[in-house]
Amino acid sequence: MTDHQEDAEKFLLAAKRAEIQTLEHLAGSCELVIRVSDLVHQLQRERGMSNIYLVSAGDHFREQRSSQIQNCLSSEGRFRHVLRERYLKDGHSERVHNMRLLNCIAYSLHGLDELRILRDHIAAFEISALESTDAYCRLIAGLLSVVLEAADVADDPEVTRILVALFNFMQAKEFSGQERAWGAIGFAGSRFDESLHERIRQLQVCQRQSVDVFLEYAGETDTAQWKSIEQSQPSRDLQRLREVIAGLKDGEPIAAEISEVWYQLASARIDAMHGLEDALTEQLLKVSRKRVSGAQSELGQHYAQLQRMKSMDWNRLPTLAVLFDPQLPGLYGGRASAGVSTLHGQPLAHSLYGLIRSQVEHIQRVSAELEETRKTLVERKLVARAKGLLMKSLRMSEDDAYRTMQQRAMDMNLKLVDIAQRIVDASVEKRPASVKTTSATVTDGEHGANI
Amino acid sequence: MTDHQEDAEKFLLAAKRAEIQTLEHLAGSCELVIRVSDLVHQLQRERGMSNIYLVSAGDHFREQRSSQIQNCLSSEGRFRHVLRERYLKDGHSERVHNMRLLNCIAYSLHGLDELRILRDHIAAFEISALESTDAYCRLIAGLLSVVLEAADVADDPEVTRILVALFNFMQAKEFSGQERAWGAIGFAGSRFDESLHERIRQLQVCQRQSVDVFLEYAGETDTAQWKSIEQSQPSRDLQRLREVIAGLKDGEPIAAEISEVWYQLASARIDAMHGLEDALTEQLLKVSRKRVSGAQSELGQHYAQLQRMKSMDWNRLPTLAVLFDPQLPGLYGGRASAGVSTLHGQPLAHSLYGLIRSQVEHIQRVSAELEETRKTLVERKLVARAKGLLMKSLRMSEDDAYRTMQQRAMDMNLKLVDIAQRIVDASVEKRPASVKTTSATVTDGEHGANI
Repeated sequence: MTDHQEDAEKFLLAAKRAEIQTLEHLAGSCELVIRVSDLVHQLQRERGMSNIYLVSAGDHFREQRSSQIQNCLSSEGRFRHVLRERYLKDGHSERVHNMRLLNCIAYSLHGLDELRILRDHIAAFEISALESTDAYCRLIAGLLSVVLEAADVADDPEVTRILVALFNFMQAKEFSGQERAWGAIGFAGSRFDESLHERIRQLQVCQRQSVDVFLEYAGETDTAQWKSIEQSQPSRDLQRLREVIAGLKDGEPIAAEISEVWYQLASARIDAMHGLEDALTEQLLKVSRKRVSGAQSELGQHYAQLQRMKSMDWNRLPTLAVLFDPQLPGLYGGRASAGVSTLHGQPLAHSLYGLIRSQVEHIQRVSAELEETRKTLVERKLVARAKGLLMKSLRMSEDDAYRTMQQRAMDMNLKLVDIAQRIVDASVEKRPASVKTTSATVTDGEHGANI
Repeated sequence: MTDHQEDAEKFLLAAKRAEIQTLEHLAGSCELVIRVSDLVHQLQRERGMSNIYLVSAGDHFREQRSSQIQNCLSSEGRFRHVLRERYLKDGHSERVHNMRLLNCIAYSLHGLDELRILRDHIAAFEISALESTDAYCRLIAGLLSVVLEAADVADDPEVTRILVALFNFMQAKEFSGQERAWGAIGFAGSRFDESLHERIRQLQVCQRQSVDVFLEYAGETDTAQWKSIEQSQPSRDLQRLREVIAGLKDGEPIAAEISEVWYQLASARIDAMHGLEDALTEQLLKVSRKRVSGAQSELGQHYAQLQRMKSMDWNRLPTLAVLFDPQLPGLYGGRASAGVSTLHGQPLAHSLYGLIRSQVEHIQRVSAELEETRKTLVERKLVARAKGLLMKSLRMSEDDAYRTMQQRAMDMNLKLVDIAQRIVDASVEKRPASVKTTSATVTDGEHGANI
């Protein structure tokens, strides 16, 4: 046994340790996501109450708003505590964190700092309900992007699956929260004009679409829980109020008192959604911790097996296993070479190569699953990018850019993501051709090199 | 100024430091890639010499082979040294490395351990030239996959561009090396049978395709250097010998002495290719180091700007910049709110928010560029996966699986990657529907949350 062979062993173990560290890191991110989920929930409530307070000129929800602000501050405190423990403590400086995640956090924290001023403006009626709602929406969007970034760097298929389900469900809930907020503005102001109608309709469509993606990634229990929320009394009562809104003519007056009923029904449903969110975050913690302990015990088994191999002298000689394994093809033209594998006849399972080989298979399986689960995230980014390009090049508003894409997709009978791809491709073609990437086809090269 | 606002600042700086660490890490990976490039080059030479040695029963290349083995051992020593310094030294244990990269390294190191035995078998003529070639091909494929993994985790668009160019060029060179090896077998054995003809033809196609992708990603100087290689005397002489081979009938005898001429012409061209490879790795080092120092100076500017802000009292109050920035839309329905931005009239450029905002834009730009450059890598993985599925489900050999896909792509007038996507989709649909991901469409959710 040479020093050299020790190298291969050391890297085999280092790979397993790297997996453990990545999974531990991920488990930590899941804890952060839980804090975000709670803070978003509290901010959504504060947003709705602030609207009613503003539109009713302080007649309604004065006390509720004050105590909700306290809830938000507590939740914010817990969020900041996790952040400091996780990212700013000494000794963590060695660990390389994700730049995009950290910048999303900086953005959200700055938004939370500004929230303190926003609250003063709201208390003094220096800002309209519409403006206030927009501000809360931006803050919450920033916090949701923290969850999106966490999902993006997750390196485990099952954890990524739950994160994608959770993120889409959090979005559905945010759309519900926005519907609650805009509805509250309409009721409290005793009228729904055409643009408010349209906005509420759009938010209902968005909710359904986010829920659809959630359901694709959700487990059976979560799906059942969602169905029971949909069939609950508050959801059905809310549906009736939605129909009342939809039936109102442009600007037709309606009793302002309904605003609190609306708020309470919408809140009952949103609180139930928050319950499902909690169930998802609990799974997230459980699964991510299980992954860590699973990888740790695999590392233990690797150690034990290497020890056993060292006690058996014939196993310490390297064999020609790797170089003649017909299942690991060369770059081109790997051939089954059955005759040669008899050069050394020792059992593969008990060799170092057996361990490396099983780890190769483990990584291939995990990577393939992960890539599939991540598809949605990649598509999401593509659509966001296409939307940004339209906003920039055609000077469209965000709404218009989005609706234009959706309309084109319907007209052309394509998926939204295909339309997005075309927009991005077209914009790349227009750029100077210093780096041409869109037309890049894949060469024979992938033929092999795929250990 | 509250403690809280310090949090936002700290995360802004932490994000920049994370970028620096990631770039430093990347610069280290580039050094590893350079070692791999050299080792692959030496192994390619050893492979070709070993073939001539084997086929000529030791008449040719006995000494050259011995001294080439010494070159390989030196190069291997430098490769192992970089690996130990980079991954196994104390103090590096805190840094989370990439599991896939480490496992590729373990695989390659184990292959290098086996190479020692392979050499003994070759010296004693206990193995055929074909078997020996296959073994070297597997080892080199393993080493190339180290480069592929390094490109896959690279987080900088320009570095990724060079890595993709380099990887494709290394593949082209490996196909050339395999052509040299199989050609040497044919000449030294004084005959080319039909399967050898077919293999050499395929290798020439593969070379051209890899070079095409390389040229898409290459800079002007590299493109020019490639053209001058193609027009050089050895390349043109080699082309004539290729035509001689192509003109030979199945099994028609040819003078064995040509094998050394073939080997030398092919080697002259491959050595010139290695020169271009060196130019690429040099760029890689230069660019990756420049990125590190660039990010470091940006961090310095951030510090200085934050210090200046602290000395100006009016800048220390958080403003309502984030929450009312119309360019950062909410999750749904961000609206331009021009009236509100006058609440505080301080210049954006000198605020904390100005810094966060510019960093958001920096990250968006880098991520978008990166995603485009990575497209080839994603496609490569997809094709490799589809090929693996065909090999498994239809019990096809690697060659057959690949050719089947290529043929279908031609028949259907589709890109290879589209065929691969269909194969993967079809196989996913056949699996139990526990996690359905393929049909996942994107919801309205990407509409916003894109800071």
